[in-house]
Amino acid sequence: MLPFSRVSIIGLGLIGSSIARAVRQHMPGVHLAGHDADPAVRETARALNLCDDIADNAGAAVTDADLVILCVPVGAIGPVAEVIAPDLPADAIVSDVGSSKASVAAALGAVIPARQIVPAHPVAGTENSGPEAGFASLFHGRWCILTPVDGGDPVAAARLQAFWERLGAQVDMMTPEHHDLVLAVTSHLPHLIAYTIVGTASDLETVTRSEVIKYSAGGFRDFTRIAASDPTMWRDVFLANREAVLDMLQRFSEDLSALQRAIRWGDGDMLFDLFTRTRAIRRGIIEQGQDDARPDFGRAHD
Amino acid sequence: MLPFSRVSIIGLGLIGSSIARAVRQHMPGVHLAGHDADPAVRETARALNLCDDIADNAGAAVTDADLVILCVPVGAIGPVAEVIAPDLPADAIVSDVGSSKASVAAALGAVIPARQIVPAHPVAGTENSGPEAGFASLFHGRWCILTPVDGGDPVAAARLQAFWERLGAQVDMMTPEHHDLVLAVTSHLPHLIAYTIVGTASDLETVTRSEVIKYSAGGFRDFTRIAASDPTMWRDVFLANREAVLDMLQRFSEDLSALQRAIRWGDGDMLFDLFTRTRAIRRGIIEQGQDDARPDFGRAHD
Repeated sequence: MLPFSRVSIIGLGLIGSSIARAVRQHMPGVHLAGHDADPAVRETARALNLCDDIADNAGAAVTDADLVILCVPVGAIGPVAEVIAPDLPADAIVSDVGSSKASVAAALGAVIPARQIVPAHPVAGTENSGPEAGFASLFHGRWCILTPVDGGDPVAAARLQAFWERLGAQVDMMTPEHHDLVLAVTSHLPHLIAYTIVGTASDLETVTRSEVIKYSAGGFRDFTRIAASDPTMWRDVFLANREAVLDMLQRFSEDLSALQRAIRWGDGDMLFDLFTRTRAIRRGIIEQGQDDARPDFGRAHD
Repeated sequence: MLPFSRVSIIGLGLIGSSIARAVRQHMPGVHLAGHDADPAVRETARALNLCDDIADNAGAAVTDADLVILCVPVGAIGPVAEVIAPDLPADAIVSDVGSSKASVAAALGAVIPARQIVPAHPVAGTENSGPEAGFASLFHGRWCILTPVDGGDPVAAARLQAFWERLGAQVDMMTPEHHDLVLAVTSHLPHLIAYTIVGTASDLETVTRSEVIKYSAGGFRDFTRIAASDPTMWRDVFLANREAVLDMLQRFSEDLSALQRAIRWGDGDMLFDLFTRTRAIRRGIIEQGQDDARPDFGRAHD
């Protein structure tokens, strides 16, 4: 049995278009409606046949839906919810894919009844953006976190869980607050650091940008991938999850200062101990299928 | 014409064993001698037939060589050079693959005549270690930096350049000091930051290690790869290139503080500007063939 039969996707970038493709592949009977605020994206989505209908306004895309997924930057969730609220069927579930959840729960809760809301976050993506960057297997083996809200409907959450499992994801449930703390360390802080170091490297006077690029295989290139992620999405994430990000950043800065001191004073044992300890986490990630087991992420070496 | 005909590799880990395999493939006429301080590594190297001869002591491995490459952690370069010096032929070139070059030039210069020394650094690797981790194509398309020393022989440097080009690398020459500055930003600082954030994530009380692993696809897993690199090698790099690393770290910390402030005060424009600027560096790296052009480093998505 299909968990939903008429799905509406608002925002047809990397994640929205990947959901559309995955629904086509895993639940071909589902009717797909879609909308994007950008006319060029709507045109591309039509050319790619991503959905059965691409509506020119968000309200028209949701009138028939039993599941609406907002795939827009988290700062746009509130405004979009306000736009669709008058056209939303009373039994439709509203979800999203945003990287912060407490702010999304508040934004949705302001205009949509709690029993219709189930915020979600599929922890998956690439550095590319736009409707052409999506692909059906993006969620395979990845985790999708649902953060049910106060006054929410457990049946709605169970149906959304079934939906994500059909797309190949594993599903966890937690509070929005705990989600925001966990993702601050596994996603937001890594992005912040990657953006920072790429900025630092771009601004040097003693080392040219051309040298930074040529010798990037020494480690730097790894950081440039996530620092190429969508700027609007990430600006919104840092503003929406400010407290948790600042908390994690504070801890990171303290640890970095300790390492700086160890280098300055030649404390090789302290360095060696940390560098040995960090290998275990990588092993855990490989063992649990959360990264490519091949060396160098499986990069081509020829 | 072969640039060298009798090559000796001291240290048969990832890099040393990759050089051996690449020499076998690209210069099959070359005689390969090898040594590793670890008896278990010597045994594996013999089983893999990495070299024509695996000697039980470093001196015996170099008596006949016209090129000796020290593939040991940079802190071991001086001690190993001291050991081989009495057995070194007077016309043999001594090189290395270390990630810092001023300290290596000094360590080699203390025991070997300058005209025989050509320090080198192939900017290539994976997170894996040991003789079984190497492969022949590791240096294809990567840069190898030669840092000729005062009193060095330009002919020796030209021969070493030809050698690395035969292994598929592109070769640049620069001073040891400039190398150390460039690599501090393209390699050492990225490793330091990766080790730090993986350490920070391991030590949290509010987020479990299991959660860090499960949701690592949000960006964190990228950092765990280089934080799984060889601890001895990296301890030595940070101690050997202390000044340049501390300089880059200081700049990074300042930039990070500025971002921290922007998040605290909700300065979305500052965040958006940086996040837009950093995309250009990624494009440059892809265009110049220094990373896999496929999304997500070409990771398997199925």
